[in-house]
Amino acid sequence: MQPRLDPFTVFMDLRTGLLDPLPVVAERRLGDMRGLYAGEAEPADQLVYRVLSIPVPELNSEIQCSTTILEPGLVGDEYFMTKGHFHAVRDRSEIYIGLAGEGRLLLATEDGRHRLEPLRAGTVNYIPGGWAHRSINVGSDPLVFFAAYVGDAGHDYETIEGRGFPVRVVRGETGPTVVINQRYRR
Amino acid sequence: MQPRLDPFTVFMDLRTGLLDPLPVVAERRLGDMRGLYAGEAEPADQLVYRVLSIPVPELNSEIQCSTTILEPGLVGDEYFMTKGHFHAVRDRSEIYIGLAGEGRLLLATEDGRHRLEPLRAGTVNYIPGGWAHRSINVGSDPLVFFAAYVGDAGHDYETIEGRGFPVRVVRGETGPTVVINQRYRR
Repeated sequence: MQPRLDPFTVFMDLRTGLLDPLPVVAERRLGDMRGLYAGEAEPADQLVYRVLSIPVPELNSEIQCSTTILEPGLVGDEYFMTKGHFHAVRDRSEIYIGLAGEGRLLLATEDGRHRLEPLRAGTVNYIPGGWAHRSINVGSDPLVFFAAYVGDAGHDYETIEGRGFPVRVVRGETGPTVVINQRYRR
Repeated sequence: MQPRLDPFTVFMDLRTGLLDPLPVVAERRLGDMRGLYAGEAEPADQLVYRVLSIPVPELNSEIQCSTTILEPGLVGDEYFMTKGHFHAVRDRSEIYIGLAGEGRLLLATEDGRHRLEPLRAGTVNYIPGGWAHRSINVGSDPLVFFAAYVGDAGHDYETIEGRGFPVRVVRGETGPTVVINQRYRR
């Protein structure tokens, strides 16, 4: 076969996740995340996370790659987190490679199960198809991880925006604590 | 949908590539690589590389992951290298994330084009479908990288064993040097 693409190399700082050449950057601020936190997501212009993506075709033969840089912070007692999503093509899987910081990976199925996995330098998380995934920064430095997923997976943010995850991760007296999400709707 | 798999986390040493829990390990010794080097691949029991794989189903929805630890060394003036392969499903792509050491990624198409990319801590190489790929350790320490590829890609080693890559990477007077592979057959 004639290859569809030519090989290329991007340079990644393994501690900060920054990529060179700088790829597509998506920023999420608190104002983009209203309704996801239990408390008021203010101020609206507060940066929460950036996703730096290496663009390749959205095909089943390809691997989409990105690094996520999630700032430390709290909304009330709830740690800064990503929006979280299912894949639009539900059975597509993904991996995370933790690079820096101290985090949790929260996962949930459509039938209401959930799991919490560690996310820090050296963790390789396997996120199987059918599990919505959200990363949470429970530390005081940026949480940085590299993600790779099947190229046609796509993103379904709406389902999570509508129902939430079954639990929240909040700052408790002895550290990160998992509490029931009172707004969760199965 | 009901998820096919449960999430899991493997711990990776980001400098040595070692995984915990220890996954499936494949070892290649010089005796496994006869005919691939220009010179005599001796001694047969000399370890060349190990591939530590995280087992997941070989499905198009999944991401196969592994780390490769390629020892430093020479066969004559030719650097230690992996066998190299096309994917059995030709259009499936792969990524490498360099973790340690100093290497080169050699790529070739079926119609005889080739490319050489850097491979060291922090490189993210995109290996598109249709490109055979071989890693080469041009340094004096182990070359370590993490690989992720579409789950049903499979391996076709036979095509490369039969034809070779168009070039070889050898130790020259001023460092790694690319020379024509006299045994290459298109």
